[in-house]
Amino acid sequence: MEYTKIAVDAMGGDNAPFETVKGAVLAVKDNDKIKIFLTGPKDTVEKELAQYEYDSERISVIDAPEIITNDESPVNAIRQKKNSSLVVGLRTIKSEECDAFVSAGSTGAILAGASTIAGKLPKVMRTPLAPLVPTKAGYMLLTDCGANVDAKPQHLLQFAKMGSIYMENVVGVKNPRVGLLNIGVEEEKGNALVKEALPLFKECRDINFIGFVEAREALIGGVDVVVCEAFAGNIMLKTYEGAGSVLLSSIKETLMSSLQGKIGGLIIKGPLGTLVKKFKADEYGGAPLLGLKGLVVKTHGNATHREIYNSILQCVTFKEQRINEKISEVIAAGSGE
Amino acid sequence: MEYTKIAVDAMGGDNAPFETVKGAVLAVKDNDKIKIFLTGPKDTVEKELAQYEYDSERISVIDAPEIITNDESPVNAIRQKKNSSLVVGLRTIKSEECDAFVSAGSTGAILAGASTIAGKLPKVMRTPLAPLVPTKAGYMLLTDCGANVDAKPQHLLQFAKMGSIYMENVVGVKNPRVGLLNIGVEEEKGNALVKEALPLFKECRDINFIGFVEAREALIGGVDVVVCEAFAGNIMLKTYEGAGSVLLSSIKETLMSSLQGKIGGLIIKGPLGTLVKKFKADEYGGAPLLGLKGLVVKTHGNATHREIYNSILQCVTFKEQRINEKISEVIAAGSGE
Repeated sequence: MEYTKIAVDAMGGDNAPFETVKGAVLAVKDNDKIKIFLTGPKDTVEKELAQYEYDSERISVIDAPEIITNDESPVNAIRQKKNSSLVVGLRTIKSEECDAFVSAGSTGAILAGASTIAGKLPKVMRTPLAPLVPTKAGYMLLTDCGANVDAKPQHLLQFAKMGSIYMENVVGVKNPRVGLLNIGVEEEKGNALVKEALPLFKECRDINFIGFVEAREALIGGVDVVVCEAFAGNIMLKTYEGAGSVLLSSIKETLMSSLQGKIGGLIIKGPLGTLVKKFKADEYGGAPLLGLKGLVVKTHGNATHREIYNSILQCVTFKEQRINEKISEVIAAGSGE
Repeated sequence: MEYTKIAVDAMGGDNAPFETVKGAVLAVKDNDKIKIFLTGPKDTVEKELAQYEYDSERISVIDAPEIITNDESPVNAIRQKKNSSLVVGLRTIKSEECDAFVSAGSTGAILAGASTIAGKLPKVMRTPLAPLVPTKAGYMLLTDCGANVDAKPQHLLQFAKMGSIYMENVVGVKNPRVGLLNIGVEEEKGNALVKEALPLFKECRDINFIGFVEAREALIGGVDVVVCEAFAGNIMLKTYEGAGSVLLSSIKETLMSSLQGKIGGLIIKGPLGTLVKKFKADEYGGAPLLGLKGLVVKTHGNATHREIYNSILQCVTFKEQRINEKISEVIAAGSGE
């Protein structure tokens, strides 16, 4: 039997090592095709692990005494802390010891290290960070949401191809609709980048391109893969998260400020539970960095064990569906574009 | 007594001429320093006006038999429909017949026509569209949210200066905090544009610059003027609007699908009313285009009479506070930068 071997950054994120180790233990319990390698200071991680019963054949610790924090310069941290849980985890991809690496650590450091340490697939120019984002109708893949600012049109086209493969094979959306994020849907609208990208997208036979898409409409759910340069994608993602938190906290505050509101709030708490769950990142796992040898999944910094758990299971589907082989094929075929 | 003379595009938007004319009539009723010039087909507008009692000395109609729709190419429409309610309105700025022009019509056509027809203030390079956006703490001015894609660093600096003057004098925020929208707050983060803009912003003595700001934090309310290139600004604005509508409609749907939810929903409707009002565009008026001779205010396409009314009153403050004189001074002083 072939295992999916996954390195997990035990020390990454605000809630490490408690939530990271707990997520790993639960994943191994629920899925017998996984082997986990926790990276972090051996003593600390083993002490944390000792709280659980688990199959010791399938969870082990790779000693990585250093820790990269969010306050460090990502590039320097990657260069200097070669024995950090993050760098050691990325190296398990390079060495093919592991198929995937999950981390809730510094986004900057993961982005800085992924291409250089784990390595890119042949012909892949840039590796986008591509989170699943909840919409009114379901989910969309937002690619790129932060890895490659000032991308070129041909980079966007590769993001579209890789995103389509991911959405079809990991998320299970047949023939996913690809939209190019713009500030209007008419062909004359937009900046130089999207105008240049448009003909490339229209000509490409590997994607189901539906044209320009506006941010508002994307959130309603008319598109499965939203392609954009990382600056715009990051603004979209952060605004969406910010809007949700501003709105929900404003609603809560308003309700708590009157007796009538408090009573109503108590009554709706139950029915609204499922909805809030859908919009919580925990449930749909972290964001994959597409186009790497192996898979790197970045979870939120404040990831709970649920998000770590779901990210680990995502890695299994990624491997079983042979995503990287599919990406390699499509990218190699289109590399003359 | 000096009136603020305001042209209003009677035919602009989805609800014209009913809401536009109603907004104008109410503004004239509530403020005796306003004179309104409604642009549109004379018969249609006069018929609409006939439904109200109003001071006929202070509302008149300028005949403009053509109408520009959202389906036309903005640039062609502006060129070909010289007798449209929109072009005729913009011309009242150029001729100094009016101080301001309010329109709910095609954003593209307004942006295409404003600089060329109404004209820019001396030394102003680009004229940003700058809506007030509700945050958790209050409001922020988002400049530019759609007028100038692919702006240069020195354009962004002018947006910051003009936005600060508007926020201080029209909205009443003393020494407004200016943030440069970015995907991280560290100086090494961001795209080429914001990295190049950063030293210009730091050196500028005309603004209260607080550094890079992320979209999420901006929505919480730590900044009064958010400066960005129009593509990013538009994505931010549309995502914010989309998120609000997705969340509120999802909440409503969830509550309506159970008896418990319906009862809770009825109870919270009252307390939540004020909150919803804050987030509705009607209440804070349209978005000014800054840096023009005169003032052009673009309201939402689906503007109600409340939004038209508030936009008209905004024009009065704009004139009384001598915003354009202040902008001219600051821009001229900095034109060697």
